[in-house]
Amino acid sequence: MVQAQVWNLAKHFDGFPDDSNFELKVEELPEPRDGEVLLEAVFLSVDPYMRLVSCFSLNEGDVMIGTQVARVIQSNNSAFPVGTHVVASCGWRTHTVCDGKGLTTLMADWPQNVPMSLALGAIGMPGLTALYGIEEVLGLQEGDTLLVNAAAGAVGSVVGQIAKIKGCKVVGSAGSDAKVAFVKELGFDEAFNYKTVGSLEEALRKASPDGYDCYFDNVGGPFTTAALQQMKNFGRIAVCGSISMYNDSTPQTGPYPYLTMIFKQIKMEGFMETRWEHKNPESLKRLMGWINEGKLQGREHITKGFENMPAAFIGVLKGQNIGKAIVSV
Amino acid sequence: MVQAQVWNLAKHFDGFPDDSNFELKVEELPEPRDGEVLLEAVFLSVDPYMRLVSCFSLNEGDVMIGTQVARVIQSNNSAFPVGTHVVASCGWRTHTVCDGKGLTTLMADWPQNVPMSLALGAIGMPGLTALYGIEEVLGLQEGDTLLVNAAAGAVGSVVGQIAKIKGCKVVGSAGSDAKVAFVKELGFDEAFNYKTVGSLEEALRKASPDGYDCYFDNVGGPFTTAALQQMKNFGRIAVCGSISMYNDSTPQTGPYPYLTMIFKQIKMEGFMETRWEHKNPESLKRLMGWINEGKLQGREHITKGFENMPAAFIGVLKGQNIGKAIVSV
Repeated sequence: MVQAQVWNLAKHFDGFPDDSNFELKVEELPEPRDGEVLLEAVFLSVDPYMRLVSCFSLNEGDVMIGTQVARVIQSNNSAFPVGTHVVASCGWRTHTVCDGKGLTTLMADWPQNVPMSLALGAIGMPGLTALYGIEEVLGLQEGDTLLVNAAAGAVGSVVGQIAKIKGCKVVGSAGSDAKVAFVKELGFDEAFNYKTVGSLEEALRKASPDGYDCYFDNVGGPFTTAALQQMKNFGRIAVCGSISMYNDSTPQTGPYPYLTMIFKQIKMEGFMETRWEHKNPESLKRLMGWINEGKLQGREHITKGFENMPAAFIGVLKGQNIGKAIVSV
Repeated sequence: MVQAQVWNLAKHFDGFPDDSNFELKVEELPEPRDGEVLLEAVFLSVDPYMRLVSCFSLNEGDVMIGTQVARVIQSNNSAFPVGTHVVASCGWRTHTVCDGKGLTTLMADWPQNVPMSLALGAIGMPGLTALYGIEEVLGLQEGDTLLVNAAAGAVGSVVGQIAKIKGCKVVGSAGSDAKVAFVKELGFDEAFNYKTVGSLEEALRKASPDGYDCYFDNVGGPFTTAALQQMKNFGRIAVCGSISMYNDSTPQTGPYPYLTMIFKQIKMEGFMETRWEHKNPESLKRLMGWINEGKLQGREHITKGFENMPAAFIGVLKGQNIGKAIVSV
């Protein structure tokens, strides 16, 4: 009989999450039946979207949503023999019994020297989000100037690197000097700390006096108000996240963007990476290829210990991570 | 020697325009030189965009911007013989001396029974705006449900009719019961008076309980906040105008739309019809074809007398027109 540790949503978020929103439980797991497997978490993902989605999809007492890299430690399903590593969306749990549905086996020839945790980052959902935002939404072209915010985060850091691979000028905004130094190391052409820069408009203008062809938005709110003013005519905006707004109890307001969108004939599109799921196998291979060639770095911010899931999650919402935030068990 | 009457911008708009913003002047025109023509205005257009664009492009004392259908009454340019009717962007003037640049001769075989004033409306800029918004921006497909506001206006009324030609369900919002009756006559499936409807969200839901695939926006502001909530996933929005915001001295604010855009994966694009100018000859023929077949009505709201230009213009901003607002000389 295996005991799973499980983090539940103790009470719904209202404003910024704290420890009181979570409770750690122990769950007795049944033996896997025919077709089922027993998974053991190796790496768990903490992501900003969890703040948002849990409000709509969870009841108090439910297991927190989330994805993990897990190892099959018991198997009655020939598709997932013992020792297989899978990506599983089974929430904040150390152990899980499930049938094979929704499990994705890690790429067959995953290289020894590439951490499997990247399957939750640069070679996983955040990497795919960056890639699809750039290719499917923005249609980024060589020579374009791209703006990305939360640039040191799991998605933003990959966005900037892919844009550099594609021959673009990349400007990044991030929330600390260490993050700015990090994205410059990654090859960003310009980067600034939006918290200390004074006027955001001025910083955006200085970083690219000619304006921006493309803007990959992870932040929303007033940042986008400022960015809109610096877009070139026919600018394209991929709306991927709104982390500046996730912890608001009442919706933030600001000037309507519509007039600017008309004058500059701007296209703005909200998206989720699941839309292009059918392309994932091919796309993950491309991301892995760039990692192997040294063109893409998958920086991670690893917190040790399943007991630290809430702290790691709150850290992400506070912007304490550089690169992809991961909890290792 | 011909005297032109000319409406100037006496002082810049601040809030809602009134008579004090305009002044009527008399101008002595020179004789047309080689290559030049003398135009006499027949119909003049008044449009909401003038409120906006004049702020950026005019100095106090400049002639108000605008387009007219004019007759050539003197000509030293063989391309425009006397008696030719042209569309000319020469502003609020009864007479103009100009070389041929920027003049567009009315379609060669303009039918006797079609008023030439439609070259400023359904077979002119507003008609092209409707067509390009539908085809180039929204990519409207048979079976889609389309929402359009300012539905009884120059652009909105054409938008709804083209959408019906394309086999769509059309819902219109307008600002009076007479306008609602008018667009229902045009074949709109549903229409409501947004001023008396109480809850806009409720009216939008009732008119199309399944939501909207496409939204052609002429209004902006809080209307769009409400409309966003009723869009289907992957909804497309063409941002054509923001008439609810043109007369604000300080920009209106409202909830940021970005989170909704992400969840519903909404695409929103600002546009101006000039982007597809190269398609105009073909497009105007299509619009004329629909007029001839009786599938498209070019309703007009005609004010008589050049002296009434400001009143007609202010009337448009107040929503007093049904169909295209025109001043006849």
